[in-house]
Amino acid sequence: MTQRFKQLETAAQGTREATRDLLDAARWNDAGLIPAIAQQHDSGEVLMMAWMNRAALEETLATGRVCYWSRSRGKPWRKGESSGQVQQLVTAHLDCDGDTLLLGVDQQGPACHTGRRSCFYVALGADTAHVDSAPLVDPHELYGER
Amino acid sequence: MTQRFKQLETAAQGTREATRDLLDAARWNDAGLIPAIAQQHDSGEVLMMAWMNRAALEETLATGRVCYWSRSRGKPWRKGESSGQVQQLVTAHLDCDGDTLLLGVDQQGPACHTGRRSCFYVALGADTAHVDSAPLVDPHELYGER
Repeated sequence: MTQRFKQLETAAQGTREATRDLLDAARWNDAGLIPAIAQQHDSGEVLMMAWMNRAALEETLATGRVCYWSRSRGKPWRKGESSGQVQQLVTAHLDCDGDTLLLGVDQQGPACHTGRRSCFYVALGADTAHVDSAPLVDPHELYGER
Repeated sequence: MTQRFKQLETAAQGTREATRDLLDAARWNDAGLIPAIAQQHDSGEVLMMAWMNRAALEETLATGRVCYWSRSRGKPWRKGESSGQVQQLVTAHLDCDGDTLLLGVDQQGPACHTGRRSCFYVALGADTAHVDSAPLVDPHELYGER
């Protein structure tokens, strides 16, 4: 944990800091990335987890439209640019040790590339797992036939 | 994405699989870990994110008490073993590409080592950030004076 986040542990509610200084102190991984959890701001549903580099986070905070870093494509991923299912930013939080983001978002339609609302659709039991949601839309409608 | 998760994309709701087979196909990182998001099952509040190896996840699914892998201590971390603030498992989901877990939990008291309910207490704006929650309890009461 960096010193700045250590200091915030005992900071009073309402204590203010420059975002720039916190992003300097955040714990980006070896690839310069931090995991970002997207949660529908009103229903509380957790939709997906993806990754951001500093530029993607700064763009997201500045524009109010969520931009991740695509690890598979190696470039910024403005959520919805292919599918039309954009994510508007409502709130953003860093966690206590500055290595995870929680985004409160307003997600249009499905967040998942399978056409499901949430990416978390494989329910695990100790012995048996099951698919517990169905697509809202055919993913071919989101992305076109491939 | 592994073939098994690719197949699940178009699987009907209710499709069943052996958990063992899905854990074989899950995308553990180079350290054998996967991120696990803990969400209070009834309120929807996202409490924390930590990491699990396969043994920690299997123990969690078998016992119903959440066990992470502590990267800093390099050993299993049965949430609450120091603080008493245990997490009971209610639901567990893998995401669409098998590289993130979402745990629905029942968290006793604060999830955060600072004594706050949630680890996500640093609210980020484009220019200014602020601490937006206060501890529920003094962390010294959770862990003793250090």
